[in-house]
Amino acid sequence: MMLAEARTSTIAEMGRLFERCRRTGYGPLYDLVADYPFRDCKALRPAILISACRASGGTLDQALTSATALELFHNGFLLFDDIHDQSDQRRGRATMFQSHGVPATLNAGNATNILALGLLLDNVGIVGVRKSLLVLRDIERMARESAEGQAIELTWIHKGQFELSDEDYARMAYKKTCWYTVIAPLRIGVICGSAPGSGAPLDDELLKLIELGFFAGVAFQICDDLLNLEADEQEYGKETSGDLWEGKRTVMLLHFMRTADAAVRERARTILLTPRATKTAADVQWLLEQMKRNGSLDHGHRLAIEYSERAIAVDATLTCFRESDGDRRFLREMLRFVIGRTK
Amino acid sequence: MMLAEARTSTIAEMGRLFERCRRTGYGPLYDLVADYPFRDCKALRPAILISACRASGGTLDQALTSATALELFHNGFLLFDDIHDQSDQRRGRATMFQSHGVPATLNAGNATNILALGLLLDNVGIVGVRKSLLVLRDIERMARESAEGQAIELTWIHKGQFELSDEDYARMAYKKTCWYTVIAPLRIGVICGSAPGSGAPLDDELLKLIELGFFAGVAFQICDDLLNLEADEQEYGKETSGDLWEGKRTVMLLHFMRTADAAVRERARTILLTPRATKTAADVQWLLEQMKRNGSLDHGHRLAIEYSERAIAVDATLTCFRESDGDRRFLREMLRFVIGRTK
Repeated sequence: MMLAEARTSTIAEMGRLFERCRRTGYGPLYDLVADYPFRDCKALRPAILISACRASGGTLDQALTSATALELFHNGFLLFDDIHDQSDQRRGRATMFQSHGVPATLNAGNATNILALGLLLDNVGIVGVRKSLLVLRDIERMARESAEGQAIELTWIHKGQFELSDEDYARMAYKKTCWYTVIAPLRIGVICGSAPGSGAPLDDELLKLIELGFFAGVAFQICDDLLNLEADEQEYGKETSGDLWEGKRTVMLLHFMRTADAAVRERARTILLTPRATKTAADVQWLLEQMKRNGSLDHGHRLAIEYSERAIAVDATLTCFRESDGDRRFLREMLRFVIGRTK
Repeated sequence: MMLAEARTSTIAEMGRLFERCRRTGYGPLYDLVADYPFRDCKALRPAILISACRASGGTLDQALTSATALELFHNGFLLFDDIHDQSDQRRGRATMFQSHGVPATLNAGNATNILALGLLLDNVGIVGVRKSLLVLRDIERMARESAEGQAIELTWIHKGQFELSDEDYARMAYKKTCWYTVIAPLRIGVICGSAPGSGAPLDDELLKLIELGFFAGVAFQICDDLLNLEADEQEYGKETSGDLWEGKRTVMLLHFMRTADAAVRERARTILLTPRATKTAADVQWLLEQMKRNGSLDHGHRLAIEYSERAIAVDATLTCFRESDGDRRFLREMLRFVIGRTK
C-alpha cells in the first residue's frame, strides 16, 4: 500500500518534470531519461523516505521532491549499472545500453542525475534552505559511500579475491547498499519531516539511523542473495543461482570459501573465475550443492536474522517517530519482513 | 601566467581533497580519481573563473572551491568521454578506460563528480548560503545544457545527418561547449566575487555573460576545429584532420556538405560514414582538398571572426568588471586570442 502510494506520487512528479524539460530543452533527451523510471518497479526508496518524513511529523509535500530525486538517482545508477554488467534485460525489457548503445546511455544516465540535482535545489522553496542543504549533504555522502563500496567490490573481482570475512562483506555492503537503499531514505525523510529547530536531539537520531540502516541493509542484502540461491525460477522471475553464474561475492559464498576442504575450494574457485559464458549448469549445480552441504546457506540465514534483530533493537530506541500512525507501522514491517522471509 | 597560477592553486586544492578522502574513505578509489587531474593540462576553466571573480572585486579564496569543482567536473566528463569515444590516449598517456576497464572508469567518473558536488557544498562556509546556491544552480544548468548538446550531436550521428546550417551548429555548440567552457566559468566567477546585495544589476550582467560566452565559445570551437584541419602534425601534437577521420560535424564540414556538387557530396558522405578503422589516408586527404577548394575553411575563418567580434561587442557593455587589473586584461586577451589565431 505504502509502496503503491509512493510509486504513484513519484511517477506523477517525474512526469511533470520531464514534461517541463521537454518543453524548454531538447526533447529527445528526456524521452530517453523517462524510459527506465516509467518501467514497472517497486519504489522502495521513495516509500521509505516518504514514510520516515510523515512518521516524524511532516507531510507528503515535504518529502516528495527528495523522494523523486532519490528515485531518479536510482534510475541513473541502473543505466550505468547495465553498461557495467553488459546486461540485456532491465525490468522485463531490453536495457538502454542494448537498444541505444553506450554513448546515449552514458549521456542519459548523466542527465538523469542532473535532473535529480535540480529537484534538490527546488527543495529550497519547499522545505527551506537549512533542510535543503542537509539533504544535499546526505545525497553527497550516499553517492560517495556507494562509489567506495563499488570500488571495494571491483577490487575483489580484479584480484580474484574470495578470502573475505563476514566483516569485510558487511563493510562493503554498508557502503554500496545500505547508504543508498536504507540510510539515506530514512535520514532524508526525517530531515524533511522534523520540526524546525530540532537541533542536537535530531542529530542523535540521525546517527542512530546510520546504525539502524546498516543492520537492516545488510540483513536485506543477505536475504536477497539467499532468495537468488534458493528460489524457484518460475516464482522468483530471475534465473536461479544467477549470482553463482556471475561469481558474485555473497555472505554464503564467502562462508563456503572459508570453510570448504582445500580440493573442493580449488574446484569452486576455478568455476567462479570461469567467465559466465563458458560456465556449465552442472558446475553451478555442483557448487550450490557443496554450499548447502557446508552449511553456508544456514550461515546466511543465521546472519540475516542476527542483523535484523540488531536493527530492531536500535529501532526500539528511536524517538523521532510518532508511534501510532501507519507510516511508522510500515517502517517497522520492513524491518520484520526480513525475519519473516528467512525463517 | 593566469593559467599557470590557476593550475597551481586548483592542483593544491585537489591534492588536499584527495588526501582527506584517502584518510577517511576507501583509498584505492581516490588513487583512480586523482589520475586524470594530475596529468599535464591547461586549467582553462579554473583560470577564467578565478579571473572573473577577482576582476569583479573578489579574492582567490572566494573562487578556489568553485574553480576546483569545475575542474573536477571536467575530469569526470573526460573519463566518460573516453569510454564514449573508445579513446586510447588522454593527455599523453593511456586512458583509464584502456588501463582499468569500463566498470572502474564509470565508477571513478561518478566519484569525481560527487567530490565536485561536495566542494560546492563546502562553499557555504566560504561564500555564504546565497552565493553557494546560485553557484549550484549554474552548475546544474551547465551540466543539463551540456547533456542536451551531447544528445543533439548523438542524434546527428545516429541519423547520419549532415544537412545542417550554421545556426544548427551554433545551437549545438552553445549547449555542448559554451556553457561548460565559457559561460559557467564566467558567471560563477562573477557570482562568487560580486559584492553582497548586488541584486538586479548583477542579474543583468549574468544575462550578458550568457550572450558573451555563447559568441566567444562558438568562436573558440571553430578555431579549435580549424586548427585540427590545418595544423602541422608535429606542432599540433594530435594527428592532423582527426576530425575528418572521425566524421565530426564542424562548421567547415557542414558548409562543404551544403555547397559541394551532388557527386562530390555523395563521395564525401560515403567516406564520412565509413568507420574510422576502414577509412584510408587518401580518402581523408581528398576530402580535405575538396573542402579547401570549396572555400569551407575560409567560411570557418570568417565565421570565427564574426563570432569573436560579437563577443567583443558584448564585452564592451559589461559593468561588472574593474577595468584596470590584470585579471580583466586576461579575460579580454582570451577574447582577442581567437582573432589573432585565425587571421
